[in-house]
Amino acid sequence: MKVVKNREISLEEYLEAKKNIVDRALDEYLPEMSGPFSEISESMRYTLFAGGKRIRPVLCMASAEAVGGNADSVLPVACAIEMIHTYSLIHDDLPLMDNDDYRRGKPSNHKVFGEGVAVLAGDALLTEAFSLMSGVIPQISPEKSLAIIHEISTAAGFRGMIGGQVADLKAEGEKVDMETVNYIHSHKTQALITVSIRAGAIIAGTGTDDLNALSEYGKKTGLAFQIADDILDIESCRKILGKDTGSDEELKKATYPALIGLEESKERMQKLVEDALADIRHFDEKAEPLRMIARFIAERKS
Amino acid sequence: MKVVKNREISLEEYLEAKKNIVDRALDEYLPEMSGPFSEISESMRYTLFAGGKRIRPVLCMASAEAVGGNADSVLPVACAIEMIHTYSLIHDDLPLMDNDDYRRGKPSNHKVFGEGVAVLAGDALLTEAFSLMSGVIPQISPEKSLAIIHEISTAAGFRGMIGGQVADLKAEGEKVDMETVNYIHSHKTQALITVSIRAGAIIAGTGTDDLNALSEYGKKTGLAFQIADDILDIESCRKILGKDTGSDEELKKATYPALIGLEESKERMQKLVEDALADIRHFDEKAEPLRMIARFIAERKS
Repeated sequence: MKVVKNREISLEEYLEAKKNIVDRALDEYLPEMSGPFSEISESMRYTLFAGGKRIRPVLCMASAEAVGGNADSVLPVACAIEMIHTYSLIHDDLPLMDNDDYRRGKPSNHKVFGEGVAVLAGDALLTEAFSLMSGVIPQISPEKSLAIIHEISTAAGFRGMIGGQVADLKAEGEKVDMETVNYIHSHKTQALITVSIRAGAIIAGTGTDDLNALSEYGKKTGLAFQIADDILDIESCRKILGKDTGSDEELKKATYPALIGLEESKERMQKLVEDALADIRHFDEKAEPLRMIARFIAERKS
Repeated sequence: MKVVKNREISLEEYLEAKKNIVDRALDEYLPEMSGPFSEISESMRYTLFAGGKRIRPVLCMASAEAVGGNADSVLPVACAIEMIHTYSLIHDDLPLMDNDDYRRGKPSNHKVFGEGVAVLAGDALLTEAFSLMSGVIPQISPEKSLAIIHEISTAAGFRGMIGGQVADLKAEGEKVDMETVNYIHSHKTQALITVSIRAGAIIAGTGTDDLNALSEYGKKTGLAFQIADDILDIESCRKILGKDTGSDEELKKATYPALIGLEESKERMQKLVEDALADIRHFDEKAEPLRMIARFIAERKS
């Protein structure tokens, strides 16, 4: 595909290049520290640099580019969203929530730094995200910065991501229906992904119709992303255990495969990706990375 | 003292009137909810309306008035600061932090709603504070709103309040020196109190000299407030136990009385209040509530 300067660039190259930009920026915004902040910043950085794919900041940048903007101008906001996502992972992994000892093959934050510091590291990442977005960002007007902080805090708060986490916590060990699973997915995952895409386009500057189209693309891509996660969870368990584990543990979890099975989950995910692509059909070649990312979500293996 | 319309108003009347304004505003910003948000909002409101003195929002309003501004115009920011203070209480009380089962005579948030929901209620209050401050506030320009969000997030983050909490957590059970106690107090308590006062004056509009004077007043009042808390802790224990407990438990805590004794702590607190009053000596009668509050801190019994 053609993206810049008539050069073919693969999705892998695009993701890698953008991930590197995000990693460098995060390292600049939250550098290693000595003195009294050394332990808390080490704990914040431990999970922030634990090998995430940076899908939210990459979507934010790709969205800015899709409407003709500059990816660099959205970098502070894109990185703030990654900090918010990271805080939610640290708190989710705590014994009092999902009780996960490992994340991406490494011990969870609280296993390394203790539960008290882990809670505070999550709190600090959330707070730092707002500090970053409210600092002077030359390319964004104060009006726009405020509007974006408002959208992001609403998407991350109890009406959005935290609301999904509450419902997930309550659903644990319960038999849940499709309505509950949709509620959890649309709040816990979709809300922050959708706002990442909206924020990129708002900063770059775009009309209402294109913003609505990108929002629709975001909602569908966000839900497809979560269904893909559910499917990967099961398939990796099967691979590791060498048998079908789909009827025990997974059935108790609020997931699509638990409710409608693996095959129908895959079909739904595929349909969501197709619909997301249709939403941005009228965009020109600058939206090609957004199209590649949507397809990648349905095809990824990890 | 004379405050408005040549009528004498006592400190009790002033605090009561302002507290009522804050309580009504908080109830409006975070109302009771039914449906999917009912439990999380109930948990957030439980600690938000657990009987706090609202000292931070009252200081924010009194500071706006001291420089000739309108207390109502700072209300959203004042209430956001109270939400941030409340989230810090909920997380502090968790078993993995201070492990307090009671707060102001009522069971702590996690004792009522469970630890998972308590963590999320804290997260949600912190996030909601930024949603509130970034919403449209007619009396505050976007530039000013952004600057205030930046100051508050910095004061509440790992360079401020959270940094103090980390140091407090690390000091538990350790023998600490004066430098550590000062570090903890200046970060854990003083930072948010100082920014409450600064935010009120910035919103109302004031010159650099007056803002610096109010910052100094804030730092000293904030530290005096924390020393008063330490003293009250010990005195209420003595009252309940009917004996001197100062040599056991308290000595392990990072407090002024543990390091320099009750009497010298009282003298230092008194001196801080006098210095704080000197900082705002040149302000006119509109600063009278700030003066009363500083004196009240050193004299309060609960």
